[in-house]
Amino acid sequence: MSDYSFVGKKMPRVDSRAKVTGQAAFTADLYLPRMLVGKILRSPLPHARIVHIDTSRAKRLPGVKAVVTGHDTLQRKWGVFRYTLDQMFLPTDKVRYIGEDVAGVAAVDEDTALEALSLIRVEYEELPAVFDPMEAILPDAPLIHEDFPQNINIHVPISVGDVEKGFRESYYVREDTFTAAEDSYFQAEPYAVVANFDMAGNLEMWMPNAGPHMKAKPLSNALGIPLNKVRVRKIAIGGAFGGRSEIAPGDFVCALLSQKTRRPVKIVYSREENSIATRQGHALITTIKTGVDRRGRVIARDITCYMDGGAYSSTGPIATSVPFLCMEQAYKMDHVRYNGYRIYTNKPIRGMIRIHGRGFACGVDIQLDRIAEHLGIDPVQMRLINAREAGEYTNTKSYVASCAMKETIEKAAARAGWKDKYGKLPPYRGIGIGCNSVQTGFPMGIRGGSQAFIKFNEDGGVTVISGVVDNGQGNDHMLVQIAAEELGIHPDDVQLITADTEVTPSDPGAYSQVSTFIGGQAVKNAAADAREKLFAVAADVLECRVDDLVARDRMIFVEGSPEAGIPVKKVVRISLSRGKSISGEGEYWPKVDPKREWIKNPFGQMCGAFSFGTTIAEVEVDPETGKVTVLEVTAAQDVGFAINPLVLEGQFQGSVAMGGQGGMLTEYHTWHEGRTLNPTQLDYGVPLACDMPKINTIIVESHDPDGPYGAKEAGMSIAMSAAQAYSAAISNAIGVYMEDFPITPDKILAAIRKKHQEK
Amino acid sequence: MSDYSFVGKKMPRVDSRAKVTGQAAFTADLYLPRMLVGKILRSPLPHARIVHIDTSRAKRLPGVKAVVTGHDTLQRKWGVFRYTLDQMFLPTDKVRYIGEDVAGVAAVDEDTALEALSLIRVEYEELPAVFDPMEAILPDAPLIHEDFPQNINIHVPISVGDVEKGFRESYYVREDTFTAAEDSYFQAEPYAVVANFDMAGNLEMWMPNAGPHMKAKPLSNALGIPLNKVRVRKIAIGGAFGGRSEIAPGDFVCALLSQKTRRPVKIVYSREENSIATRQGHALITTIKTGVDRRGRVIARDITCYMDGGAYSSTGPIATSVPFLCMEQAYKMDHVRYNGYRIYTNKPIRGMIRIHGRGFACGVDIQLDRIAEHLGIDPVQMRLINAREAGEYTNTKSYVASCAMKETIEKAAARAGWKDKYGKLPPYRGIGIGCNSVQTGFPMGIRGGSQAFIKFNEDGGVTVISGVVDNGQGNDHMLVQIAAEELGIHPDDVQLITADTEVTPSDPGAYSQVSTFIGGQAVKNAAADAREKLFAVAADVLECRVDDLVARDRMIFVEGSPEAGIPVKKVVRISLSRGKSISGEGEYWPKVDPKREWIKNPFGQMCGAFSFGTTIAEVEVDPETGKVTVLEVTAAQDVGFAINPLVLEGQFQGSVAMGGQGGMLTEYHTWHEGRTLNPTQLDYGVPLACDMPKINTIIVESHDPDGPYGAKEAGMSIAMSAAQAYSAAISNAIGVYMEDFPITPDKILAAIRKKHQEK
Repeated sequence: MSDYSFVGKKMPRVDSRAKVTGQAAFTADLYLPRMLVGKILRSPLPHARIVHIDTSRAKRLPGVKAVVTGHDTLQRKWGVFRYTLDQMFLPTDKVRYIGEDVAGVAAVDEDTALEALSLIRVEYEELPAVFDPMEAILPDAPLIHEDFPQNINIHVPISVGDVEKGFRESYYVREDTFTAAEDSYFQAEPYAVVANFDMAGNLEMWMPNAGPHMKAKPLSNALGIPLNKVRVRKIAIGGAFGGRSEIAPGDFVCALLSQKTRRPVKIVYSREENSIATRQGHALITTIKTGVDRRGRVIARDITCYMDGGAYSSTGPIATSVPFLCMEQAYKMDHVRYNGYRIYTNKPIRGMIRIHGRGFACGVDIQLDRIAEHLGIDPVQMRLINAREAGEYTNTKSYVASCAMKETIEKAAARAGWKDKYGKLPPYRGIGIGCNSVQTGFPMGIRGGSQAFIKFNEDGGVTVISGVVDNGQGNDHMLVQIAAEELGIHPDDVQLITADTEVTPSDPGAYSQVSTFIGGQAVKNAAADAREKLFAVAADVLECRVDDLVARDRMIFVEGSPEAGIPVKKVVRISLSRGKSISGEGEYWPKVDPKREWIKNPFGQMCGAFSFGTTIAEVEVDPETGKVTVLEVTAAQDVGFAINPLVLEGQFQGSVAMGGQGGMLTEYHTWHEGRTLNPTQLDYGVPLACDMPKINTIIVESHDPDGPYGAKEAGMSIAMSAAQAYSAAISNAIGVYMEDFPITPDKILAAIRKKHQEK
Repeated sequence: MSDYSFVGKKMPRVDSRAKVTGQAAFTADLYLPRMLVGKILRSPLPHARIVHIDTSRAKRLPGVKAVVTGHDTLQRKWGVFRYTLDQMFLPTDKVRYIGEDVAGVAAVDEDTALEALSLIRVEYEELPAVFDPMEAILPDAPLIHEDFPQNINIHVPISVGDVEKGFRESYYVREDTFTAAEDSYFQAEPYAVVANFDMAGNLEMWMPNAGPHMKAKPLSNALGIPLNKVRVRKIAIGGAFGGRSEIAPGDFVCALLSQKTRRPVKIVYSREENSIATRQGHALITTIKTGVDRRGRVIARDITCYMDGGAYSSTGPIATSVPFLCMEQAYKMDHVRYNGYRIYTNKPIRGMIRIHGRGFACGVDIQLDRIAEHLGIDPVQMRLINAREAGEYTNTKSYVASCAMKETIEKAAARAGWKDKYGKLPPYRGIGIGCNSVQTGFPMGIRGGSQAFIKFNEDGGVTVISGVVDNGQGNDHMLVQIAAEELGIHPDDVQLITADTEVTPSDPGAYSQVSTFIGGQAVKNAAADAREKLFAVAADVLECRVDDLVARDRMIFVEGSPEAGIPVKKVVRISLSRGKSISGEGEYWPKVDPKREWIKNPFGQMCGAFSFGTTIAEVEVDPETGKVTVLEVTAAQDVGFAINPLVLEGQFQGSVAMGGQGGMLTEYHTWHEGRTLNPTQLDYGVPLACDMPKINTIIVESHDPDGPYGAKEAGMSIAMSAAQAYSAAISNAIGVYMEDFPITPDKILAAIRKKHQEK
């Protein structure tokens, strides 16, 4: 057992009380004096040339303060990479999906703003549209962006070893194709944004976001104002799940309206807008060819993945390789080839999502089960044979310093009673396993590190100033625990200032699972710096050596002699009375290969650490209705070190809800000519608390050498492996290996029917 | 001439544009979701026992969310010193002045809150009241506080040398008594406060204030919550002038209402409330006995001052010695004795004000003129004979490192044409001179220093995080100039985060003229720390020695070779790409004597530096109406170094408006049985822009060895000397030495009449 006071302990989060009592203020709750209501006019067509926009009647409506179109902008294009600049936030040439932002209105109230929208006349020249990526890639398909032939937004080619040779040397080779539909993030809080441009030309913005610094830079570019005039902040956030990473056109429209009116403007998206006009998850078509030796060891894999990217690139180019990277982290292979294509279609934009590529990940595991069956190997054994181990390199040359993948498999299998159940369950009952791994952080260049300041206040409490973002996962409490632990004070003594481009130093944001590993570490280093100053004063007062001192329970004392200690508060006040404040500064940058690049050189150390997760699901299928009842789920993850086990259990449960219960059973979009038919909570299948099965959570600690106290990512490799476990369990229950995700009752009934017909 | 890029240059202030366009948001402009309106029930009686308060009807009124009285509080007493704890913010025993806070109400709107106030029934038992300090000090006067016999709140006795011996050795000794009425601050912005207590027990507050840290501590004590749960902030402020230094009962009531309702509460004072329920300036009765030698040199002074303190101590105990300290800084004496008494009366509370003790300061100079006349010495010569000089110690043992007092006298006299005018003006025209000195900072113990953080952002701009408060005097711009100067960047590149107990490190606040000297210096030191890190990277890139580098115009280069420079922005980005952020930390604590104490040991170095000011006024008096027309004012101040001469000119002008035009001609309160008869803008004589005379401003620079670039206080010694110059000029015009201030037409007519009668 650790000797820690706070880290490693189950603690209720600092933000819980305000959230459960409804007191937490979200962006939509923000009111500023003279604030206007903003609304956005959206395209009703999936693909059309904009011939003319007439805003004159809207502008004349009393109460309307501004109407903006693309002609009021600098018409600059945005993209995450230099080679994917494709989006004007308010386009002037054409619209590319139903729901695309065309014009913005700011008015004194909502009714007036909505009426003004109805008065804007847009003349469109409709163009042929394309909705299927496999059609869009054909040479004669309508071109969505002139600069991207065959509608290929991005092609990621990765090749390691000699795949053909690998297949030749394999004992058994098989190829399968898997498909998955688009899904939404469906955050509890619909998107909202407030912009306030002041007379000095400073723009202040609030929105739910995963990293203010990532929003500020493209806003400054698009608006043509210096970065230091753009201040992005966040208040309470109702979920992100990867969907609030990038700038949204709504951010830009809101800022532009505020710039024109020099008044604060607030835009709150409807639930429908949140579904179609923020981001969605990609649909995928993945072909996986795998060769194994006699004992089930994977020798070679060749994967081709077509991703339906929607109308613009956004963060999609990164998402194009992430499912592959997760797979190569989780499972060993000698030779591998990957071709990822992200294809434009006239559908909403797709970005990063917490369950990256469910069609890909589930396919890998469904195929592994098939191969295992062919070889007569137990699925759990099959995973153990191929599981990643510490001290290895991935195929793309990332060193895996800590890895307890096998332990997660073994512990999950033991807890789930795998041995007693697999192959021994009654008809239409099934059990399945999935394994995955995620990155603790992606390379972010000059925004890849986190810095923190800590200042001691005169009462012995501290303020932590850090760019870390909490958008629901418990990051705020994580910072509090670390600061309290390092300084020997109580969590109640720690106040946080976070996620504000102006006040807080740079931080990559809550993207790609970096908050604890990078931001937490920065706070730990800042605390250590402050502690050094604290101890210098204490050593002088106690007449002892600095190295002999420890801080605990708000006291500083010589190790072993707590009774002769001095309160932290007193040391702070003594220092102040001597004319010296106590503060600390610290930062952390992950050890990544600076030469690594997403498309052109995806080799080298990609992040500081990797997490590993195994989920086992047990299900029952009703053969009459196709309904799936999940009986029990066991989720085990190697998190490095559990800073707050209570939060981690919640993360695991949420991950099962999102990845398994929603992601594999009910969540998907349906379409008609590019129009989402189920954008609302009534018809999109987000699981509710009452839908959730029993979940066993198992925390495995591998103590990563670089993580704070050994911690790394937590939760996401459960979200992904839960999807895999659910699909495997259903396949096991009905005796058909499913290939199209999510697995809805109609697909189950069709599979059962087909199986009976084939008999 | 200096080689500086920004400091020392006239620059428009960063906050000007928002203020002149009306875009600046003041506390009354702040809206928070679910915010309630707070109102305060005030005592209608000057002195009465509270028998019973019945709030039941008010509580039952629909829309009322909370009603609080002293019985809902911890009933703790507040005072600036341990020995002046006398005020419960909501008293339970008795009320002590008309306007005292008795109960608070929070309701959904203003009408409901006002109606609720009318439904509160307070049963009082009226007590005899006392309004004149000379009556209050008599043994049989009604006692306002049981623990303070003879209603003496504080007695400051200071004695240096042998005053009696000094008088015996003097050539000429005279004694005069001077009186002055109470005055108000009359800030453009009436007091307003917003409190927001959240579910986690954190209190966030906004109000116009001169130092958030000074508000937070007594609030935490009075509410019984930890200091780190109290966050005090400020937004734009419409003036302070010393009147927003201390916690106001309204702050406490607002916080209490928010604590009870767990909703944000806003209280906005009416103009009347701002006059009677914030603070006023003390009325004074000062007897000055001065002995001089044959040549006019002051040998001894004995001063007794009775200050009408109103009902509570507040910051009054400090104000009890400040006029004396200013005088002993400005003028040399061999022996001096001072007895300051602050007396309780049943009138509003008096605190620190920008023109400390006009009755005292004017008295000193009127008496000097009388003595000069007796000795046949020109008044200007009389000041030069007695003026303070650099390298001397004050009587209370403060070392004066920089002092250009004589230069201010000489330059002002030359500019005003003193020689050609004094004694040569037509009847009822007069010219007068006043000199004064103020402290650059008072000792503030563990809150006496300022610390600042600076962080470089990726665009080469910086954020300065400092506790310095700008409440109208231009402190924000001062920080921007200093940061830009030190870092070689442009003021546009500097963003400020200030005055927030949570985010910003400790700072004494904009009290007692410390902002530039202490806060500015902290920012200068933080910038130097950041520059060191910047230069280390630049030296590596440019392959040169760090010591050879300079930063200017956003470039870093080897001194003398700007063409071979590298942009600051590029250096920041190179550093980030190497995994190192650039930030700085700095602090400044003035060199004061830690053993010095206000009452028990007022000896030793009291502050870092002293400013010195001379004002000369030329007036014309209409002998028919007593109306004074000010023809020209010349204000010269030794400011050490003028960081922004434009701001300083504005400060001098404002000081003449407050100290001279308002303070000596029109501003005073009239009373009836403890009730202020002129609390509003209609009947209280605040001078308007159209009332102002021509003002010549002369900036004198003595380059203080401890000040940032040599700077020290600016403006306040003009406010005080302007009052003195006006009173001297009027006395000179009518040939009567005036002894009661301000000098209103009725007093002038009476003096002229009396003079004619005596002839």
